[in-house]
Amino acid sequence: MPGEFELIDRYFRQADDAAARSDVVLGIGDDAALLDVPTGMQLVAALDTLVEGRHFPAGTPADSLGHRALAVNLSDLAAMGATPAWFLLSLTMPAARPEFLEAMSRGLRDLAQQHAIVLVGGDTTGGPLSVSVQALGLVEPGKALLRHGAKPGDLLFVSGTPGDAAAGLALEQGLPAAPQLTAAQQHYLRQRFLFPAPRVALGRALRELASACIDVSDGLAADAGKLAGASGCGARIDVDRLPISPQLAAQMGDGATRAALTGGDDYELCFTVPPARAGELPGRLANVKCPVTCIGVIEESPGLRASGRRGPVDFDLGGYDHFGSSG
Amino acid sequence: MPGEFELIDRYFRQADDAAARSDVVLGIGDDAALLDVPTGMQLVAALDTLVEGRHFPAGTPADSLGHRALAVNLSDLAAMGATPAWFLLSLTMPAARPEFLEAMSRGLRDLAQQHAIVLVGGDTTGGPLSVSVQALGLVEPGKALLRHGAKPGDLLFVSGTPGDAAAGLALEQGLPAAPQLTAAQQHYLRQRFLFPAPRVALGRALRELASACIDVSDGLAADAGKLAGASGCGARIDVDRLPISPQLAAQMGDGATRAALTGGDDYELCFTVPPARAGELPGRLANVKCPVTCIGVIEESPGLRASGRRGPVDFDLGGYDHFGSSG
Repeated sequence: MPGEFELIDRYFRQADDAAARSDVVLGIGDDAALLDVPTGMQLVAALDTLVEGRHFPAGTPADSLGHRALAVNLSDLAAMGATPAWFLLSLTMPAARPEFLEAMSRGLRDLAQQHAIVLVGGDTTGGPLSVSVQALGLVEPGKALLRHGAKPGDLLFVSGTPGDAAAGLALEQGLPAAPQLTAAQQHYLRQRFLFPAPRVALGRALRELASACIDVSDGLAADAGKLAGASGCGARIDVDRLPISPQLAAQMGDGATRAALTGGDDYELCFTVPPARAGELPGRLANVKCPVTCIGVIEESPGLRASGRRGPVDFDLGGYDHFGSSG
Repeated sequence: MPGEFELIDRYFRQADDAAARSDVVLGIGDDAALLDVPTGMQLVAALDTLVEGRHFPAGTPADSLGHRALAVNLSDLAAMGATPAWFLLSLTMPAARPEFLEAMSRGLRDLAQQHAIVLVGGDTTGGPLSVSVQALGLVEPGKALLRHGAKPGDLLFVSGTPGDAAAGLALEQGLPAAPQLTAAQQHYLRQRFLFPAPRVALGRALRELASACIDVSDGLAADAGKLAGASGCGARIDVDRLPISPQLAAQMGDGATRAALTGGDDYELCFTVPPARAGELPGRLANVKCPVTCIGVIEESPGLRASGRRGPVDFDLGGYDHFGSSG
C-alpha cells in the first residue's frame, strides 16, 4: 500500500497549489509546512475532526465528507471574521480506495478553491474513518470577532435558515419524507447537510460591527446561549421571527421551530449588533449573498429564553452532544 | 455527558496557559485561537494523528498517549529547526473517563511545559480512540531545515540510538524479553517507545549548518532514503557505525542492526552536514543533551545502500507502512 505522502500527493495536491498562494514557502512533502505570515496580521487557528457514526452517518458520500471536513473549519474562521489562508489534512480510513479518495478530494478541493485556501500538509493512516482538518486564517489585529462582547440590548441575528441541515441529516439516515415534501425540496434539505456553505464573506463583513459572533454547529439555541454566556449575559429569542425555510416547514410542520432552535450542523453565523448600529447592516451585507434575520435580543439575566405569540417555548438547551445519541 | 469545551477546559487547560505566552491573544474557548506571530518570523505547521491499534497498541498508558501525540508533532517542528509555540488538540474517544483524561492531559502537559508550547484550542468527540495534534512553531526566514539540500559527499548523521522504540513497542505488545535483558534495560526500551524525546534543541542547533534534515519516524533507512531522494541523491549507511544501545543489543542480539535500520517511532533526527563544516558540530552541540553519530555519506547514485565489515546488508526499505501490519 502507498505511504502517506504518496496518497496526499496523488489525490489531494493540486498542480497549481504552490502557485495559488505566494505565501506558501514549503507545502506538502516535508516534515511540516513553512508559511509566510503577512506582517501585521494575526493568525487564526482552528482544528475540527469529523468521525464516522458521530458527525456523519456511515455511507455519507465521499465528496460530502471532503466538503464538510473543510467547511466546519472554515465556519470557525468565518465566526472570527478571518480570511482563510492554509489548511492541513489528517485522514484516517480503513483502506485506501481510489474512488473514495478521488471523490473526497474533489469535495475538499472545490470548497478550498472557492475560499482561496490551500492544502499545505497532511497525513493519512489506516483506522476507523475520520477526518481532521486544521485551518489557518488571517485577521487584522483587534478586528477578530469574538464570542464575548455582547451587551444587554444588543440585537441577536442569525444567517440563513437554521434547522435545514438537521432535517437533511434525518432524511439521509432514512427518516421518511413528509407527503407534502417535493423531490426538489427533499434534495435541498439533504444538500444543506451534505454541503453546508461556511459564511466566510459574512464574517468578514461583520468585522468592527458585530459585538459578538459564534458559528452555529451545535444548534442555534445552544450556540446563542454560549455567545450570551461568554458575554456574561442572557438572550431571548422570538420564535415567531425564526427564519424557517419552506422546505423545513414542509418536512417538519409544527416541529420546524424546534428544529430551527436545536438542529445541529447548520454552520450559520449567530451574532449581535448594538441597536444604534443595526442600520449599518444592509450596507455591509450588500455584497454578501446570505440573508440575515434579527431573531431576538441580549438580556442582562443569564440563560436563554424563547417565546412567541403562543407564549414561552420549552426546549432542551443541550444542543448537539458529542457524546450523546444525536450523531 | 459534558461538551467539548468543558472537557478541554477541565482536563487540558492550564491555569497559567494564558500567562505562559503573551502571544496568545485568545486561547481555548472561542471558535478558533487568535495568535500574534512575531514580525519577521515564518510559521511552521504540522498535523499528525495517532490511531489506536495502528500507532499505539490498545492498552497503552494514557500518559504515554498524551506525551506521544504531542511528541510526534514536536519532532516534525524539530526536523525543521523551528521553535515550538502553540498547539491544538482533537481527541476522539469512546467515553470520557476521568482517570484516562487526567493521565493523558498530564502526559501532554509535562511535555508541553518542557518545550514552552501552549494549548490554544481543541475539541473532543466520541468514537474510536485517536488523537490529532496540530503544532505551530516559528523559525527565522530562510533558516528552516529542509529535507532537500543534501549534496554528494555530505556526511549523514543520526541522533540518539535508533531501534530502541521498536524494541520497546514489541515488549509492550507481549514479545518476551531476552534472558540477558535486565529489568532496568527492559524499562528503558519500553520508555523509549512510550515517552520519546523530540529533538527540538538539536534541530535548533543545526540551523544554517545541516544541509538537510528529517525526523526518523518510519525507520532510519526509510527516512534517510527519503532525505536522499528529496535531495536528488542516494545514500550509503555504514552499519558498523550505527549507534546501537546496549539495551537494544541485549534484547535483539544480531537483529539489533536491522532494528536500528528499520524500527519505527524513534523520533530522532537524521541530517547531513557538508564535510568541510563537520568540525563545527561539537561546538554547536555543546549545550544539546543528545549524542549524534556519523553513520554514512550522501552519494550521487539514487537509492539507499547499507554495508559493513561483513559486506552489503540487505533489508526491506519499506519502513513503517501506515496501512501495513507493523502498527
